[in-house]
Amino acid sequence: MAKRVVIALGGNAILRPNQEATFDNQMHNIKMSAELIAKIEKLDYEIVVTHGNGPQVGNILRQNEEAKDVVPQMPLDVCSAESQGFIGYMMEQSIKNVLNEEELTSGVLTLLTQTEVSPDDPAFENPTKPIGVFYSEEEADRLSEERGWIMMEDAGRGYRRVVPSPQPQKIHGVESILKLLKQNTIVIAGGGGGIPVVRNKIGQISGIEAVIDKDRTGKKLAEQLDADVFMMLTDVSNVYINYGKPNQEKLEEISVLKAKQYFDEGQFADGSMGPKMEAAIDFAMQGKKAIICSLDQAAEALSGFAGTRIVNI
Amino acid sequence: MAKRVVIALGGNAILRPNQEATFDNQMHNIKMSAELIAKIEKLDYEIVVTHGNGPQVGNILRQNEEAKDVVPQMPLDVCSAESQGFIGYMMEQSIKNVLNEEELTSGVLTLLTQTEVSPDDPAFENPTKPIGVFYSEEEADRLSEERGWIMMEDAGRGYRRVVPSPQPQKIHGVESILKLLKQNTIVIAGGGGGIPVVRNKIGQISGIEAVIDKDRTGKKLAEQLDADVFMMLTDVSNVYINYGKPNQEKLEEISVLKAKQYFDEGQFADGSMGPKMEAAIDFAMQGKKAIICSLDQAAEALSGFAGTRIVNI
Repeated sequence: MAKRVVIALGGNAILRPNQEATFDNQMHNIKMSAELIAKIEKLDYEIVVTHGNGPQVGNILRQNEEAKDVVPQMPLDVCSAESQGFIGYMMEQSIKNVLNEEELTSGVLTLLTQTEVSPDDPAFENPTKPIGVFYSEEEADRLSEERGWIMMEDAGRGYRRVVPSPQPQKIHGVESILKLLKQNTIVIAGGGGGIPVVRNKIGQISGIEAVIDKDRTGKKLAEQLDADVFMMLTDVSNVYINYGKPNQEKLEEISVLKAKQYFDEGQFADGSMGPKMEAAIDFAMQGKKAIICSLDQAAEALSGFAGTRIVNI
Repeated sequence: MAKRVVIALGGNAILRPNQEATFDNQMHNIKMSAELIAKIEKLDYEIVVTHGNGPQVGNILRQNEEAKDVVPQMPLDVCSAESQGFIGYMMEQSIKNVLNEEELTSGVLTLLTQTEVSPDDPAFENPTKPIGVFYSEEEADRLSEERGWIMMEDAGRGYRRVVPSPQPQKIHGVESILKLLKQNTIVIAGGGGGIPVVRNKIGQISGIEAVIDKDRTGKKLAEQLDADVFMMLTDVSNVYINYGKPNQEKLEEISVLKAKQYFDEGQFADGSMGPKMEAAIDFAMQGKKAIICSLDQAAEALSGFAGTRIVNI
């Protein structure tokens, strides 16, 4: 029986730092990701792809801001939905083209995905995720007053809106994804962590202005789908301990208990490997395999020859 | 066995003429459409919903234009993908909420949809569909030169870009939609007519700047899905012959041959009922039923008590 893998593509898979966010640049990068997905398809895996949306939703917010005098601004959840459309379209098209080149017969489908978060998530008390454009202090004060936005000074470049980053509780569409996978279909879902929604006491859902971490959503998706492997593709080949020190050590296959020990020692930086290792450990604890590796070594890592592989042994 | 219906929602289902394009206005309209979908769900139909995107993609194009100095402009196919994300999200959420209220257990899923058109479609020789913002004559000349856009004077309000409106040839994802329908899932697909793509000689697909008529896509979708009924929901209760004349006559249930005769007589205006009747006749010719009715009478029309019903008898 085919194994099931959830692949979380990092931002670099779509737009590299310092690259201009043109359609051509993004399409070029995505084509390379599509080739890697096709390699994994050949290994006989059922594949679900999820991806980040940081630069894209940032640009959509910026377009909303620049055009606000002529087009009513949309809330963040709508901008997130738009970015799923944008990136999902490019990705689906690229994967289809590579499969066609390689004479593979699998289908590819992109689902618009809502992700439920809890209205009681402590993140709502403490918004931390900066989004959108930079404002002057005066503009920031005005926006704070007019729209109730929480504004924070960011990196000496001005003020930005910050929004909460709650935990994903339930990703919509999982039963359908399972059926589609059985039909030889590669599914793209949960883009940008999913469109954040909350459910009220009578069961109605509505959008909420927040950002869900894509690796957390990837992990949750892998859990809900009972996947065998959860992979996070990033721009480095491996996770390291004692990073940047003389005794720096590359991690290849390690037990989840060892990984947890390193995590508790504070080996992984908050802003970079920390959240990825946290998701990996959480997932591997359930008797599964989690992998962190570079985009171009994804297939090798899945076969056990590259990347950092966290296993429950 | 449940019958299968493809429902094409008109622009009014999302934004009414002269309404401001705010999120709240659009969500309010969509909620009413969602209630009608739930009514049809109770009649035990397998349901596929498709919808227009004119005002929404127009606003996304406008946002692209206004922000062009700070965010690279996206091609029309990407804007169309974004509008599918935007509208699909609102629609899926609203339908889920109404189903929940009514204690119906069906799922709802939104598929990002690419629609193949032929690169040899005569529409590419003769672009007719105005999109995006109005420009002055000087700007129009410059855009024509710089970007190769075809510009046309529109309604005395200035110059607009015109793009081709080719026929849909093949809608992607139909096999998956069929499986999802069997799983008690309402599927939203083909929004805005689908993202237009062309396939080259070696089978690679790529986006193309065009607009596909949503009723044509709805009809093609209904054909590919072997649907029993294709419904176009609009802002009038019925189609008329001799419209606006003393002998004006409301059409209720009519044979496809009669409908064809009226069509050939030029009873239906090019810009309004003409294309809808053309799609309806094409579909009904295949031994199926096509319905044109108002949004609020959709369930009644499906049961044979309202709307204009074109049948093959």
